[in-house]
Amino acid sequence: MSASDRLCFTNASLNGETVGLAVSDGLFTGIGPDVSPDPGDEVIDAGGAILVPPLVNGHTHAAMTLFRGHGDDLPLMRWLQEAIWPVEAKLEDEDVYWGTRLACLEMIRTGTTSFWDMYWEPAAVARAVEDSGLRAVVGPVMIDPKLPSETESRNRTQVAQFDHLATCGPRITPAVSPHAIYTVSTEGLETAASLAAERDLPLQIHLSETLPEVEDCLAKYGVRPAFYLDSIGLLNEKTVLAHGAWLDRSELELIAERGTTVVTNPVANMKLAVGGVFPYPEARRSGMKIGLGTDGAGSNNSLDLIADLKSFALIQRHASGDAEAVPVDEAWAIATGRRSDLLGDPDPLQPGKPADFLLLDPHALELALGSLASNLVYTANGSVVRTTVVDGRVLMNGSLPEDADEIIAKAKERATRLGLA
Amino acid sequence: MSASDRLCFTNASLNGETVGLAVSDGLFTGIGPDVSPDPGDEVIDAGGAILVPPLVNGHTHAAMTLFRGHGDDLPLMRWLQEAIWPVEAKLEDEDVYWGTRLACLEMIRTGTTSFWDMYWEPAAVARAVEDSGLRAVVGPVMIDPKLPSETESRNRTQVAQFDHLATCGPRITPAVSPHAIYTVSTEGLETAASLAAERDLPLQIHLSETLPEVEDCLAKYGVRPAFYLDSIGLLNEKTVLAHGAWLDRSELELIAERGTTVVTNPVANMKLAVGGVFPYPEARRSGMKIGLGTDGAGSNNSLDLIADLKSFALIQRHASGDAEAVPVDEAWAIATGRRSDLLGDPDPLQPGKPADFLLLDPHALELALGSLASNLVYTANGSVVRTTVVDGRVLMNGSLPEDADEIIAKAKERATRLGLA
Repeated sequence: MSASDRLCFTNASLNGETVGLAVSDGLFTGIGPDVSPDPGDEVIDAGGAILVPPLVNGHTHAAMTLFRGHGDDLPLMRWLQEAIWPVEAKLEDEDVYWGTRLACLEMIRTGTTSFWDMYWEPAAVARAVEDSGLRAVVGPVMIDPKLPSETESRNRTQVAQFDHLATCGPRITPAVSPHAIYTVSTEGLETAASLAAERDLPLQIHLSETLPEVEDCLAKYGVRPAFYLDSIGLLNEKTVLAHGAWLDRSELELIAERGTTVVTNPVANMKLAVGGVFPYPEARRSGMKIGLGTDGAGSNNSLDLIADLKSFALIQRHASGDAEAVPVDEAWAIATGRRSDLLGDPDPLQPGKPADFLLLDPHALELALGSLASNLVYTANGSVVRTTVVDGRVLMNGSLPEDADEIIAKAKERATRLGLA
Repeated sequence: MSASDRLCFTNASLNGETVGLAVSDGLFTGIGPDVSPDPGDEVIDAGGAILVPPLVNGHTHAAMTLFRGHGDDLPLMRWLQEAIWPVEAKLEDEDVYWGTRLACLEMIRTGTTSFWDMYWEPAAVARAVEDSGLRAVVGPVMIDPKLPSETESRNRTQVAQFDHLATCGPRITPAVSPHAIYTVSTEGLETAASLAAERDLPLQIHLSETLPEVEDCLAKYGVRPAFYLDSIGLLNEKTVLAHGAWLDRSELELIAERGTTVVTNPVANMKLAVGGVFPYPEARRSGMKIGLGTDGAGSNNSLDLIADLKSFALIQRHASGDAEAVPVDEAWAIATGRRSDLLGDPDPLQPGKPADFLLLDPHALELALGSLASNLVYTANGSVVRTTVVDGRVLMNGSLPEDADEIIAKAKERATRLGLA
């Protein structure tokens, strides 16, 4: 269909009630028991499928699907230094494009419709997101150059990247993306802060992923990482901090006060054996904005956020010793971006809002008994998603998108080129 | 087909090689590149699907699919006392039958072909297993009666249950199943030991799931749980200990020496916030026999053992701080029962062995890039299973078994009766 035609889904299920959904120009125009097709509508019978908001992956490196399983059994720093960085040095645009296409395909399959990406070759990432039909916050990685004399050139490249990303259409949001406090100097972080402020862009950074990062920060700057970032003006409502596995109570309070979002990546943290666990019970009490991320497929190794939702709840229950640590409705709200206005919308399925939604297989074994929220957290995985719609466009309905085979073949080709397949 | 006809699968993939599989009388008669159909064979084209051994669920309470999501946010003892036991008091044979049928359906779907079950109404469990086509070790729960005067009657019931189970055909193995050291007296455990010895039956028991269990054992018997069991003669090569979350090094050494198997249930342990983590790195060094279990759907809430394999590896990496704690091949071997001769066969895909196997979807996104073992541990879930064969019978091939809808409907009916749906 063209974007201006009306699309009507009949026979969907919302909170146990049969509803119709009307979609026009990428927005919901109606959702409810009384919504039915108008003459001329394109009609899709949802067959009783369950309407839910889509998932928001708050932190990933999408193109790293190419690295899946590479260096599986290494801890974070050795994994980066021995497995990842040597291969990343060989990356070409087309590697990033097809790796990101594969990631988008996996996200469409498993119900994620928007994601925060941080990676190299952002133009290729943006092109892949555009072609896939998803939404993404695209962040060109910023790290210190090898030589101080290259700083100006690095900054020029960043500016050019953001100039380009600004032209990439409404489904792409650029984000300033300094990698971490241990790979970007104070001066670099100040540059990032200025860039974000000048262009009114969101900013994302890895923070407090490992204990050595915290110890080094204390030794070098005399304060813990969140306070260090705050001293540079980087803690604000448009910042996402990925990980936060070693945040202490004073940092949680500061982050909450600043309105900054923390995205926890429980699977990657456990896989890389970073030791810390994002202190969710305390974070929740602080009123902080919170999201969930998979991290890259290199360190997860899946992009199935419904599966990771279970890991999030499990490690929080385990670490706190409190079986009540993550009520199921709360976990589901976090995974769908409803606990941070930077990541998502608190009430997304409403007329006038973007027509991004999922329809879940009503015959899925995982949803047969028990409550929907409990099953989404503890029983299901992304395979229960039958239909994925973004911006009013049906990206999947029952079977994988038509270009799935081509995407897989091309991604394999690129992984082979990099010596990874 | 009747069990005596030959069945030949063509075009399967084993370690990257195209192979055929011939099956007769429930056994493999050939596996390899040279195996092709004989005249009169029933032929199934595997279409390039990937041949792997099936999963062995070393600990579950299958009928608890009916309890899925009930009391989700409660810790172990409150979950048992407030959510589970009051409903179990109302259980009828047919509840157990349909709950177990649903569990078997979920296991067929996700690649588990045999499981160790411990539950009430063992005749109903056995009937459900028979009807599903799976294999199971069926364990009638043994707990202390409310009054000492009821002990003899409890023992008579147990004997009658084992008499019945002995008649249930070759896919059912009865197991003596004292619930735990905190629900069965020393006298009861001695009775269980005698029963197992007399009838040459395996025995399973929950052990060392919570810290209070260990503390109470020390207070009451002056030794830790494994030593207490050993003093009753219960640690031997035919015993499975479920959980072992709080075992210490001396217990691990004793258990390894006795040839006893420990089945770890990482998801249930995290969900119920028991705090301890089965000390896999030390257990591995001891040479102990090890298996993986989901526990019941009441406390997991899934029976997808491929999904749980990831949780096993993640929590072990996290708890040990060692990213090398669980190499992927080892994890996969544990989940397929190949690290305990009581649970499975170390080398199952061989002529003359039972024709129990899986064929995985070669087009599954989760298996597209990277190594198979890594993907099975970290990327995939049970949705990659396309074909499940047990005893030479095809229980699933592409779509769910024909009786799936009936099973779901009946399970819902029974859950509704119990006030759970």
